Amino acid sequence: MSRMNPAELRKLQPVAGNGLLDRRTFLRGGAAMAAAVTGYGVARSSAAEPLADDPWSRVPGGTTVGYEKRSRFEEKVLRTLSNPNGEPRNMHARTPHHMVNGTITPNGLHFTILHSGIPDIDPDRHRLAIHGLVRQPLVFTLDTLARYPMVSRMAFVECGGNSAPLFSPQPLQESVQALHGCASNAEWTGVLLSTLLEETGIDPKAKWVIAEGADSLAVSRSVPLAKALDDAMVALYQNGERLMPGNGYPMRLLLPGWEGNMNVKFLRRLMLAEQPAMTYYESKIYSQLLPGGKAYQFYFLQEVKSFITQPSHGMTMRGPGLYEVAGVAYSGNGRISRVMVSADGGKSWAQAALQEPVQSKAFTRFRAPWRWDGGPAVLQSRAWDEAGNAQPLRAEFVAHRGELKAPPPVLAFPNQHCNTITSWAVDRSGEVRHVYA
Amino acid sequence: MSRMNPAELRKLQPVAGNGLLDRRTFLRGGAAMAAAVTGYGVARSSAAEPLADDPWSRVPGGTTVGYEKRSRFEEKVLRTLSNPNGEPRNMHARTPHHMVNGTITPNGLHFTILHSGIPDIDPDRHRLAIHGLVRQPLVFTLDTLARYPMVSRMAFVECGGNSAPLFSPQPLQESVQALHGCASNAEWTGVLLSTLLEETGIDPKAKWVIAEGADSLAVSRSVPLAKALDDAMVALYQNGERLMPGNGYPMRLLLPGWEGNMNVKFLRRLMLAEQPAMTYYESKIYSQLLPGGKAYQFYFLQEVKSFITQPSHGMTMRGPGLYEVAGVAYSGNGRISRVMVSADGGKSWAQAALQEPVQSKAFTRFRAPWRWDGGPAVLQSRAWDEAGNAQPLRAEFVAHRGELKAPPPVLAFPNQHCNTITSWAVDRSGEVRHVYA
Repeated sequence: MSRMNPAELRKLQPVAGNGLLDRRTFLRGGAAMAAAVTGYGVARSSAAEPLADDPWSRVPGGTTVGYEKRSRFEEKVLRTLSNPNGEPRNMHARTPHHMVNGTITPNGLHFTILHSGIPDIDPDRHRLAIHGLVRQPLVFTLDTLARYPMVSRMAFVECGGNSAPLFSPQPLQESVQALHGCASNAEWTGVLLSTLLEETGIDPKAKWVIAEGADSLAVSRSVPLAKALDDAMVALYQNGERLMPGNGYPMRLLLPGWEGNMNVKFLRRLMLAEQPAMTYYESKIYSQLLPGGKAYQFYFLQEVKSFITQPSHGMTMRGPGLYEVAGVAYSGNGRISRVMVSADGGKSWAQAALQEPVQSKAFTRFRAPWRWDGGPAVLQSRAWDEAGNAQPLRAEFVAHRGELKAPPPVLAFPNQHCNTITSWAVDRSGEVRHVYA
Repeated sequence: MSRMNPAELRKLQPVAGNGLLDRRTFLRGGAAMAAAVTGYGVARSSAAEPLADDPWSRVPGGTTVGYEKRSRFEEKVLRTLSNPNGEPRNMHARTPHHMVNGTITPNGLHFTILHSGIPDIDPDRHRLAIHGLVRQPLVFTLDTLARYPMVSRMAFVECGGNSAPLFSPQPLQESVQALHGCASNAEWTGVLLSTLLEETGIDPKAKWVIAEGADSLAVSRSVPLAKALDDAMVALYQNGERLMPGNGYPMRLLLPGWEGNMNVKFLRRLMLAEQPAMTYYESKIYSQLLPGGKAYQFYFLQEVKSFITQPSHGMTMRGPGLYEVAGVAYSGNGRISRVMVSADGGKSWAQAALQEPVQSKAFTRFRAPWRWDGGPAVLQSRAWDEAGNAQPLRAEFVAHRGELKAPPPVLAFPNQHCNTITSWAVDRSGEVRHVYA
């Protein structure tokens, strides 16, 4: 990382309204020098030495255990639960995006939605059957799958209903966790479904794969055969260890970039068929009404989206000065190609730095340097993917997809596949709120 | 993933002795087809439907919690502990490489070595001071660091003493966890040290940075300023969440590719100086004797290494047929450029597939398809890095670096920076043992 020379320092003028700076200052490690020693609110010290010992430096520390747990000071970092008492209905657990960083969602904090709870599956007794329009039905154990060629990949999983609060005609005063917490990102390792279908053979009449879970509701979804032969995976590991129970232990279907519910957990059956099964979850729950009263029959893709995680609703800025604006962007179409950030509610935009390597159908962390002058500001992010898709502004999204007209006593309201931009307003006190802008 | 045509299938001849197949069959997802339906030991089924319900499919599942825990069936996947009762000496916890997969080490299983236990640090009270030969000493809190430009990167951390059992003149009958468990890999997020040194300014006389931890022994190491200004990071997050306590919560120095002990945990002080401090850990513990009685004064780099994780010592093969040979490779010099695998003790070699994206100074998962004929075999892997370095064969390594002549009653024996190849012998019963070959 080279240091900036004086000529470069002069370039540290805002590149967009309300104090957004050039992202390249980050890549050079040079923003700090330009900021001098007060921009980030750091304490000057004329007596940094000798340091006083803290209490924990005066006593031997604690011992290690076989499986390490996080610090007791981090126990407030939790998923929020929609059904904490396990009543007989679905249960959501949302990722605290404002309290994590990087691109990986830690396994303990990966979002989950369960329709009949988490089955307590004995992996030695669990089986995966592939049958229907195949040449040879086969039944796989975990031990057998361990002998197959495996692949690893980063991939986000996102519920079709994530971000549904943004269909509300008024901005809900909710955190990024409440608004966007049903999307997470992990390194998944397993066997490509195409590999297993080579084993069974495929009847030329087959066009769909019906996937079924071992949960008591047997959640089932229909997957076009083309996706199954493309990048679909029978995932066995999540961030290096076996899948978390809520993420489908001991195996799940992974359909990179496609609606979360289709990534069937506790996978026990793949049946090849000529037609989709039109299951409850695909025909009723995860279908999507349009303003004219019609509905999309299928809407598999999770389209390009981004949101700012730091700062975000509920946080308070600590006085004017330099900050990092950071967030995540992702697209079911492939790689993120660009993220733009605004500090003036969309009047002007600056390009954010993307954390390398940018991976297909995975979270990309974006970052932009910002000098907050202490006045009102509205922060937004907008992403583009390599297929050329732009994240829609709210006005154009609502015009096309509608918004929620009344509180939802019925299921017939728009709540799926919302990918419009999110706006955070900063007021003079430094408080950050959710707004539409 | 396209399917293989018959002409391609004929290419599935071994590309090296004792059954090693072409790695490209993996990339095509086609190895399975060539294997027909028996190569991987999978069960044919003429009655895959209807499936019998398992007990867990007949009852509602369990509820979710704020921070998810792994399945009770995975509780055997643990780090091995050298000092489980927390006696007043160092304590090692080793990663079970044979029970994880992908490239990321889960946070609960990341190796740790602690010399005076894990301090119970209150992050709100912890401070990082940068002082010495600087223009302006500064003291950073976690809140202040949160405003700085951050970066994320994958990086392995490895103890200088990892793999030390391979200095033994006879192969120890130990697992890959015991032999190589003091290396792990994570996504680290934090502030580049170069960014913070721009804030303090650097006196031109400064050549070293002395890093000190807040543990009761105040573990201290000296880092050349050039490394501090290159890719050194004050790491705050590990795989998305705050550092694990044993990995330095709430902050550690990360020196990608350099000896683990230098990545000072519980970081509380960085003092710029003209000379290294010659601390206990750098002058006595992590120094390295050479056969002639001399010693390396400093040996910072963790050099190119690889080892096979599946199959490995202690496992038993389930009969002849197709298997995946998998392992990890890494180099402190940069990216892994190539991994070769042998099934005949080094007489012939086949190129392994590398999991993309291959990242600098990070674990790279390699995989090779293998048709085991049921006879004796010796599996080996050998890695090269982009700087052109080859992992040394054992004979050349021992000739240069020596081996352990007697059981170690004293500290003066070779036990550092061993990166020679590992050999696993498979016998006719399918048992896998550690050998030298």
